[in-house]
Amino acid sequence: MACEHCCGSDDDAVKHKHREMQEKKSLMTRLNKIEGQVRGIRAMVDDDRYCVDILTQVSAVQAALNSFNKELLARHIKTCVSEDIKEGNEEAVDELCELLKKLMK
Amino acid sequence: MACEHCCGSDDDAVKHKHREMQEKKSLMTRLNKIEGQVRGIRAMVDDDRYCVDILTQVSAVQAALNSFNKELLARHIKTCVSEDIKEGNEEAVDELCELLKKLMK
Amino acid sequence: MACEHCCGSDDDAVKHKHREMQEKKSLMTRLNKIEGQVRGIRAMVDDDRYCVDILTQVSAVQAALNSFNKELLARHIKTCVSEDIKEGNEEAVDELCELLKKLMK
Amino acid sequence: MACEHCCGSDDDAVKHKHREMQEKKSLMTRLNKIEGQVRGIRAMVDDDRYCVDILTQVSAVQAALNSFNKELLARHIKTCVSEDIKEGNEEAVDELCELLKKLMK
Repeated sequence: MACEHCCGSDDDAVKHKHREMQEKKSLMTRLNKIEGQVRGIRAMVDDDRYCVDILTQVSAVQAALNSFNKELLARHIKTCVSEDIKEGNEEAVDELCELLKKLMK
Repeated sequence: MACEHCCGSDDDAVKHKHREMQEKKSLMTRLNKIEGQVRGIRAMVDDDRYCVDILTQVSAVQAALNSFNKELLARHIKTCVSEDIKEGNEEAVDELCELLKKLMK
Repeated sequence: MACEHCCGSDDDAVKHKHREMQEKKSLMTRLNKIEGQVRGIRAMVDDDRYCVDILTQVSAVQAALNSFNKELLARHIKTCVSEDIKEGNEEAVDELCELLKKLMK
Repeated sequence: MACEHCCGSDDDAVKHKHREMQEKKSLMTRLNKIEGQVRGIRAMVDDDRYCVDILTQVSAVQAALNSFNKELLARHIKTCVSEDIKEGNEEAVDELCELLKKLMK
């Protein structure tokens, strides 16, 4: 199963997917920010900062990760899943349903 | 309001709280791991990895952050909130209820 | 847009979808149980039951609703969304992404 | 352990807690509404309504249950937990931390 959007090759267990530069840049920007936020929380713990202030920052990181997930998931559905369905391959649909079970805790 | 567990001083807007070495080490270890996981996800995006594999890793980071929150929140309730209540200061109780509204989305 | 799985007609704002008897029965059984659980919680409040016991029951209802959502969402993706994509209609894909934003709080 | 707010007696496994009329009425009103919403969703399934419309209603019920939880939890912390801490009984604190682990999935 190799489509223009999702170039996972059978012999290589690691699946890859080509993304447009703009999409990739947006995802990387989000992750850079999240990494900085986590480092900031570490500095707060190191500095013996008050619990509620730390917990509030963690909740902001959780929101940022949730937004990252929504952006990536929407792209995945609009490219990989749609392409697979058009090619009559239901695998990506089952895979999506399994993934959603994990994300919708 | 300055207690052995929660030493926020009125003139300094930033509140601090002394934590035992062991507690601090546990929180820092968790955050180091989370930071490493976020960096790993960035490398996956950079390497054009398949969406579902990336989303699965993000869900692991969210679970790790949730565990961090639970540990810190339990410590906060058992020290800061309990101390404040014993001293007749209801502020920490209102603060806890406001915090839980944010964490219980 | 009227497909065998998803028979929403344009002139009637309310969209309908034919479901197999077995699927419908499974969804109804889940909802009957949930309704009974909510009634049970109401009886607990009426009986002045302890907060933690009530909150534990509510958390069970939330888990049951989450399972209901996952079952219905999987069916929706495997029928409505897949059918629409095969017919070249991207509307259901956009609709799914919007829905997931709501469900993935 | 029997306090004015939380009158669970040792010989009776079921713990009770006296609530003011106003608090009880507010909780019951919320639950009546939630029960009606669940019944409404059952009618939608029975009427073969479109999946996305049903899922949107379920998400509204989940939000209503979450608000119910926050109201009851805040009352619990401000009465039972605070009373117990003032009486030097740490049991309610441990119980609260265990409960939060469940609610903060």
